[in-house]
Amino acid sequence: MAKIETVLSPALFHLYEEGLHEKNVVVIDILRATTTMCVAFENGVSEMVPVSTPEEAAILHTKGYIAAAERHGETVSGFELGNSPQDYTRERVGNKKIAITTTNGTRALVMSAAAKRVYVGSFIHISALAETLLKDGRDVLLFCAGWKDKFNLEDTLFAGALAQKLLAGMTVEGDSTLAAIDLYQTASADLAGYLQKASHVGRFKSLHVESDLDICLRMDISTKIPVFSKGVINLLHHESAHI
Amino acid sequence: MAKIETVLSPALFHLYEEGLHEKNVVVIDILRATTTMCVAFENGVSEMVPVSTPEEAAILHTKGYIAAAERHGETVSGFELGNSPQDYTRERVGNKKIAITTTNGTRALVMSAAAKRVYVGSFIHISALAETLLKDGRDVLLFCAGWKDKFNLEDTLFAGALAQKLLAGMTVEGDSTLAAIDLYQTASADLAGYLQKASHVGRFKSLHVESDLDICLRMDISTKIPVFSKGVINLLHHESAHI
Repeated sequence: MAKIETVLSPALFHLYEEGLHEKNVVVIDILRATTTMCVAFENGVSEMVPVSTPEEAAILHTKGYIAAAERHGETVSGFELGNSPQDYTRERVGNKKIAITTTNGTRALVMSAAAKRVYVGSFIHISALAETLLKDGRDVLLFCAGWKDKFNLEDTLFAGALAQKLLAGMTVEGDSTLAAIDLYQTASADLAGYLQKASHVGRFKSLHVESDLDICLRMDISTKIPVFSKGVINLLHHESAHI
Repeated sequence: MAKIETVLSPALFHLYEEGLHEKNVVVIDILRATTTMCVAFENGVSEMVPVSTPEEAAILHTKGYIAAAERHGETVSGFELGNSPQDYTRERVGNKKIAITTTNGTRALVMSAAAKRVYVGSFIHISALAETLLKDGRDVLLFCAGWKDKFNLEDTLFAGALAQKLLAGMTVEGDSTLAAIDLYQTASADLAGYLQKASHVGRFKSLHVESDLDICLRMDISTKIPVFSKGVINLLHHESAHI
């Protein structure tokens, strides 16, 4: 039976790299990079290129890409888009190509590149994603992007929520997945309230994500499955999603 | 107000080293190194020297120390003691000096050496330890030794249990401590049962810790406070514990 493992921080990723090329990885940066990417695909973006620096995004801008850049929770000065899902409307991103750099999420995507397939994680398409992973049937690594290498609750809660769905056909390997599932069960009745409590130190306020929180926790408003391959995020073809 | 932070793995420790010399660190290796150390002090050991290798322990053996060595959950062949608290009886360790090397716990102690004070964590003296930390009043770093750099539940549950007691006079900083507290609240009604569930993959069986589990989860059977300083674990003097 396929296994589910959870990486709680990019600084722990190296412990899970053995056999990575045979695993599916789900990169999780709920507030907000991977959620925003899924919103963008739901709203018709044609492709997204995650890059490491605002400078690289600016270079792609000269080649017809919309340039999006976020650092420390804020849109980088001079860039059209940041990291807020509210900015990625159909009007602004439909049929466009976007180059994007964010503090944690894009780095985790690049770190995962050697995996069999790299999925972009979000609550907005969690059931469709779980279904795809269960149909594929390979071992799954849930990779929490965290915050500057530290553990964070929102990514871990999503890992727990997804792991719980994957239990329909997979088995848990290791304590981090068990912890994620139990934390999700504690929080699931009121995810937003739980995270507000968790953020009492003001992290969300300082990241300007308070107004994004509800969007980032909304479940199953999309069935589109963005995957990262050869440097580009595209939609998984309908055919291969149902092999 | 003093802050409580939690390090979920040695591989994340570097993220918390800023200002370490002004913090108290609690090193946590519940199964079993730090529990066994606390049992040894309750049973009258005069000092313990954590060393990195069985060879170093063997050298100290020639200088009058009992040599204890554990690797991958087992007593290293040829050594008098391993890592099971059941071996550290008053008859065997009372008034003796012990050199000990273990897979995770001794390494975490050495990593913490620059802290203001390094405490040895265990459920068996959790209330006395909490009282000592609250009286001292400095920021506290709860350092989970983990298992070969991976997150583990038992160390995290102890961090949560201790953090909950410290909330009487301190405040939480960061999501890892919040997660630890919530996991402890989920598990606290039946810690042993919870960990048995967590260990369904057989980790405890392979570590031969099943018969030690009850001892390692027993609360408040000791009020002795072992601290690690200048390479040696000794009891905190009664006077300085009540400054």
